[in-house]
Amino acid sequence: MKHLLSAGDLSRDQTLAILDSATQMHDVQRREVKKLPALRGRTVVNLFFEDSTRTRSSFEIAGKWLSADVINVSAKGSSVSKGESLRDTVLTVASMGVDGLVIRHHASGAPAQVAQWVDAAVVNAGDGTHEHPTQALLDAYTMRQRLGDLDGARVAIVGDLTHSRVVRSNLLLLNTLGAKVTLVAPPTLMPSGIAEWSAAEGFATSYDLDEVIGEVDALMMLRVQRERMSGGYFPTPREYTVGYGLTRDRLRRLGPDAVICHPGPMNRGLEISAEAADEARSAILDQVSAGVAIRMSVLYHLLGGSGDE
Amino acid sequence: MKHLLSAGDLSRDQTLAILDSATQMHDVQRREVKKLPALRGRTVVNLFFEDSTRTRSSFEIAGKWLSADVINVSAKGSSVSKGESLRDTVLTVASMGVDGLVIRHHASGAPAQVAQWVDAAVVNAGDGTHEHPTQALLDAYTMRQRLGDLDGARVAIVGDLTHSRVVRSNLLLLNTLGAKVTLVAPPTLMPSGIAEWSAAEGFATSYDLDEVIGEVDALMMLRVQRERMSGGYFPTPREYTVGYGLTRDRLRRLGPDAVICHPGPMNRGLEISAEAADEARSAILDQVSAGVAIRMSVLYHLLGGSGDE
Amino acid sequence: MKHLLSAGDLSRDQTLAILDSATQMHDVQRREVKKLPALRGRTVVNLFFEDSTRTRSSFEIAGKWLSADVINVSAKGSSVSKGESLRDTVLTVASMGVDGLVIRHHASGAPAQVAQWVDAAVVNAGDGTHEHPTQALLDAYTMRQRLGDLDGARVAIVGDLTHSRVVRSNLLLLNTLGAKVTLVAPPTLMPSGIAEWSAAEGFATSYDLDEVIGEVDALMMLRVQRERMSGGYFPTPREYTVGYGLTRDRLRRLGPDAVICHPGPMNRGLEISAEAADEARSAILDQVSAGVAIRMSVLYHLLGGSGDE
Repeated sequence: MKHLLSAGDLSRDQTLAILDSATQMHDVQRREVKKLPALRGRTVVNLFFEDSTRTRSSFEIAGKWLSADVINVSAKGSSVSKGESLRDTVLTVASMGVDGLVIRHHASGAPAQVAQWVDAAVVNAGDGTHEHPTQALLDAYTMRQRLGDLDGARVAIVGDLTHSRVVRSNLLLLNTLGAKVTLVAPPTLMPSGIAEWSAAEGFATSYDLDEVIGEVDALMMLRVQRERMSGGYFPTPREYTVGYGLTRDRLRRLGPDAVICHPGPMNRGLEISAEAADEARSAILDQVSAGVAIRMSVLYHLLGGSGDE
Repeated sequence: MKHLLSAGDLSRDQTLAILDSATQMHDVQRREVKKLPALRGRTVVNLFFEDSTRTRSSFEIAGKWLSADVINVSAKGSSVSKGESLRDTVLTVASMGVDGLVIRHHASGAPAQVAQWVDAAVVNAGDGTHEHPTQALLDAYTMRQRLGDLDGARVAIVGDLTHSRVVRSNLLLLNTLGAKVTLVAPPTLMPSGIAEWSAAEGFATSYDLDEVIGEVDALMMLRVQRERMSGGYFPTPREYTVGYGLTRDRLRRLGPDAVICHPGPMNRGLEISAEAADEARSAILDQVSAGVAIRMSVLYHLLGGSGDE
Repeated sequence: MKHLLSAGDLSRDQTLAILDSATQMHDVQRREVKKLPALRGRTVVNLFFEDSTRTRSSFEIAGKWLSADVINVSAKGSSVSKGESLRDTVLTVASMGVDGLVIRHHASGAPAQVAQWVDAAVVNAGDGTHEHPTQALLDAYTMRQRLGDLDGARVAIVGDLTHSRVVRSNLLLLNTLGAKVTLVAPPTLMPSGIAEWSAAEGFATSYDLDEVIGEVDALMMLRVQRERMSGGYFPTPREYTVGYGLTRDRLRRLGPDAVICHPGPMNRGLEISAEAADEARSAILDQVSAGVAIRMSVLYHLLGGSGDE
């Protein structure tokens, strides 16, 4: 494995290897053992063409705990590029002698393009509404912590499917792990071409959360991107909550051992109620914690083998 | 001591312990010994909801000299929170596996609130116009370098008392150390309720710097927050300098061994003249230098004991 | 050598010493040896009063590969200074206990001024349109990699000479190394006083790239600062390319062993064609790579001798 561009690139064995290493990394994290020397002498650049403080921080901590040197480069606006092409910007950064490039970009496919230009290992940290593979890995890690093996596990992904970069990566990875996925959304937030897509990938869809909620092992509530939902085409916040929010009422219909996930940041009171966010079935902070372990594991798998020790 | 939220939380013994450790840290700093391994494997996040480059840099250097991993998170604007609650933002950062959270926030009391939510040690790096305890510690450290024991020392704090986050922390800490404090300000910049406050805490107040200046061992000139002082209610810059600036004339009335302090950044020519800033009695750059030693000491006291070594 | 303020401060021996150490640093960089311990316990602050992500990143990586602690301080806008003087800002940063100050400032001469105020070693990372000595060093390093000794080498610097901070440093350094320089620009982008300057420094000038291009060993194409070139006084982009761009046609007239340099970021299609940027004679990415090695070498020469080991 040279890059991590899409959750779909990972075989079942590779996925399990990453998740297993993350368990070890997580032990380190929890026991507060000294940081690991695995990536000492390696240099990781967080090259973010979009703000994402939480993803950037998670990668930064992950790199530092593996003893890598981590450099943050915000390429938003003109600070890096000054009208320069993506290719020139990336080649410039890579030419400084970088081992790993963690890229967040607003354009779908940008990290895959970058990977063809550079020798460094490229990690897709979110490209447009396309993919966010480390998010899918941390989601799977968190669900496995609670549910065990995900083979046959029933997972619903609920909400603003159109604007989410999490959905596709989760579908691909959960498929690899044998889970049964149902996408739930109002009609206006269901991605176009969903019928063909669901047929090809073998997942179900539903417009009715109430029909689905009693039958799932894990419920992944997506953030409503309110800033992208102006106009009468979309449901109002109130309509959204009534139809698709994880309200106190719906919580009662959720199984006693089901897991509640949310990629954050949450709109409390909109897609998820405060009760749901804070109760025992919620694994939302576990997801954040797992994020560092997963990113340590990914960086270790991509960069760990090639250096001197 | 689990957190450092208010200068008033520190007993005399705790205060002296921090100041004494800072002396050792300062020796390290001056002699340019290699950095200390004390916090190796610990992670400190500077979570700043307001810009403060100098305070952030001071904490960053302090953490790095103790071999901690330091992560800067600017939570200004929407980069972290995206409408998320303070509690969710802080729990997210803490869930990554953070040992220390250094918080600057525009709201008084925010760090104390945060300390109730997280396991990490919380350091208040300035909350609104409320407190800034490490500033008070570095001020006390600097005055002790010049004056020795502060028991009975006469300290005047002069200027824009209303908009300063330094005053309350200094009052509390100087009280603990037995100093006698006088607050000096024009009537419009004296905090409301000052009569009750001064009675309760046992400090004096004055509108007349000239009456006070000859009688003090240390003179702490506060920055005039010009951006908050528009309108006829406040003195003009010229009026301010005439009434409350440390002018060349007033310098002559200050005792030969008195100490001049200023938390910076200075408005030269407004609250302090160039002569006062640069002469031998000025300890202003000593304060900056002490700031790193004090923050090393605080981080060491909060985080040093609980890790592996 | 205490500071690096101007390429003109470096003797031939000092220049060669920096270039030779950079070769060793570059070996480290290429072979991916673990980072060097040379500056462990030293603290370098990147104090940037102007954005320059690529220069800042290059210095940050260089410092970290030498095991220094590197602190980035963006002093753009009011975050540091709040109306404070340059002197007070710099003394504040220096008082924290900094060993090296890497300064980018919009005002010509600012780093030289700063060097008179502080004990720390000062590196000029670009001051206005004045100098950028590490850029000149990395340019010389790159040309030497391709051409060998530069004594007698013919170098043309082409383009927007008026707005470039690279020209003066390159002229000074190339003179020291014995190269023969020709400055090529349209009349409106030739610096004022160029006749006297060229007489004093012993370089040639030309308005005609086509006359020069066949006779050079190295061609340094400068970035057109389009944002500074509005108004009818300057050539249009089309006119510029026709007259002074490194087009496909002109490439054919360039010698087979000549070197093409560009400090980046490039305006492809304006001052340099895609063919020129990407062909074998182009050393543009080598320059970026050399930049880290040169900055390691400079930091090592300035800071390496005075610490404990």
